[in-house]
Amino acid sequence: MPAAIIWHDDELKILDQRRLPGAVSYLAAADLDTVWNAINTLAVRGAPAIGIAAAYGLVVAMRNTPDKLTAAQFLETLNAAGSHLKTARPTAVNLAWAVDRVIAAASGEPSYARIKAEAESIHAEDRKICRAIGEVGRALITPGCRILTHCNAGSLAVSELGTATAPLYLNHAANVPFKVYVGETRPLLQGARLTAWELSQAGIDVTLICDNMAASLMAAGQIDLVIVGTDRVTRNGDVVNKIGTLNLAVLCHHYDVPFYVACPASSYDPATPSGSEVAIEERDSSEVLGDQAADVPVFNPAFDITPAELVSGIITDRGLARPPLAIALAELFQRGD
Amino acid sequence: MPAAIIWHDDELKILDQRRLPGAVSYLAAADLDTVWNAINTLAVRGAPAIGIAAAYGLVVAMRNTPDKLTAAQFLETLNAAGSHLKTARPTAVNLAWAVDRVIAAASGEPSYARIKAEAESIHAEDRKICRAIGEVGRALITPGCRILTHCNAGSLAVSELGTATAPLYLNHAANVPFKVYVGETRPLLQGARLTAWELSQAGIDVTLICDNMAASLMAAGQIDLVIVGTDRVTRNGDVVNKIGTLNLAVLCHHYDVPFYVACPASSYDPATPSGSEVAIEERDSSEVLGDQAADVPVFNPAFDITPAELVSGIITDRGLARPPLAIALAELFQRGD
Repeated sequence: MPAAIIWHDDELKILDQRRLPGAVSYLAAADLDTVWNAINTLAVRGAPAIGIAAAYGLVVAMRNTPDKLTAAQFLETLNAAGSHLKTARPTAVNLAWAVDRVIAAASGEPSYARIKAEAESIHAEDRKICRAIGEVGRALITPGCRILTHCNAGSLAVSELGTATAPLYLNHAANVPFKVYVGETRPLLQGARLTAWELSQAGIDVTLICDNMAASLMAAGQIDLVIVGTDRVTRNGDVVNKIGTLNLAVLCHHYDVPFYVACPASSYDPATPSGSEVAIEERDSSEVLGDQAADVPVFNPAFDITPAELVSGIITDRGLARPPLAIALAELFQRGD
Repeated sequence: MPAAIIWHDDELKILDQRRLPGAVSYLAAADLDTVWNAINTLAVRGAPAIGIAAAYGLVVAMRNTPDKLTAAQFLETLNAAGSHLKTARPTAVNLAWAVDRVIAAASGEPSYARIKAEAESIHAEDRKICRAIGEVGRALITPGCRILTHCNAGSLAVSELGTATAPLYLNHAANVPFKVYVGETRPLLQGARLTAWELSQAGIDVTLICDNMAASLMAAGQIDLVIVGTDRVTRNGDVVNKIGTLNLAVLCHHYDVPFYVACPASSYDPATPSGSEVAIEERDSSEVLGDQAADVPVFNPAFDITPAELVSGIITDRGLARPPLAIALAELFQRGD
């Protein structure tokens, strides 16, 4: 599958996702400004991918400093770079988290080798989490299975296997035959632009639909399973995810299709009791209107909340949570903490 | 509300719907070729509107013939014009129906006055049917009601009040306050381009959403009623309509929101036992792909089938059909036949 971020021989390359699917081009990110711009202008997107890019961004920044910095100078320069990088997308939690983690590592050992190792660890951990989600979820896909997914929780948003896509990639590698339908995901078309592209690049049998066609497919018995990603799962198992996810969950409930959510530990939010406590960002009407629509008011929520009772299971890197989700999630995630 | 077709002082004007909502321009349809092109290139669309345009098209064609035609020459010329007009959109049932009806009228009295009267009758009957649907459906809308509709079954597709929109227009004229949400209706955006435009032109409070946002609104208790049009209602009450309709019906069932369908007598099809006998047209992938999507296979059904059990009622020009729909529809429509 295509990689959002490539780190090889101390060189950072960032896939320019703004140009997908028309052009596959990597930005050679040889300095901090290029990384800052890539994050700021959404060349790289998806919470984990932003974190990984930021961590490597600090490595790149420190590679360009003079050889003979004192420990204090090293930390001062690193801190300045980190503060600057955080301004590229202030609301991205993973960005601040990754920057802080690299800085913390350097505080014990202020060296290029140490921060490079920390960035590589962040990247490797993300790959490992995706692989673990894939291993937990792979048994859900039986030969001939027809899967529907939504938005992009794939290798472009995360690393390597992605989250919702990890069970797909592992089964594909094992030559299990299956078919994927991707909802285009209005208004920003992440399904059409990104997921359809990355799955087809990997040689997976993928078919694009408009979001409003899912009911028709399910009524015809053409969907066996839905897997989506998530931005946040609250303590009770409610799922915050891209607008349109709730729509699919209701359809699954009606047509008796299993509805699964892929959720890394970092997206589990036990501090928030339920989805009703989550504020939903409303985005600009221009995303919906385009040049073909009448100039009328628009309601454009970025996310919706799928209640836990519509969720068949949550695929985590620590195992599969089955209803009652609140209890299952607490058990899975307490184990490792 | 804006008129798709204007016939005034023997002049035909056809609203060029291809240019909506950017520009409101009427084609002066002074000859048969202009009418043929308007139908062929979808400047006029919607089954009833196509029929009305075709009927007036024949009137316009005959106005341009020499004054002193014999009866045989008149009929010969009219038949040739009708045959030609039918080729503009061979699959449009209302086109052939309207042409045949004007020709049949002329066979009794081959005169310009007679075919003009017949075309005006077709137009007037359509207006009357829309008004009757509005009168039957208007009581469903209570003050403060929030209504969701899909695609375009409005004045642009039919005449004057439209079908699904007729209850809205009548209530608006009576100063009943209400709010309308319109699903953009991917892939061809009839909701965003046409319905949102015509309702806002009429001064109705309208908000545009992406199709996948309906669940979110219903979960928040923001939708009191869904009204859609239909291409065909089969004997058992199954509803054939624009893709995405079934999606809304399932959501309504889940969230206990009434789901109504506006259906003129001409769209009731008692010869077809159920929706499972209706072949669904699959349209070209280019409608979905655009320049932002990955180049992958597309599933693009134009319509879906909403089973009768998900329908709260069918608003017809002869009264409101309540479940069991098969019996109610048969009673309503037998009465007049």
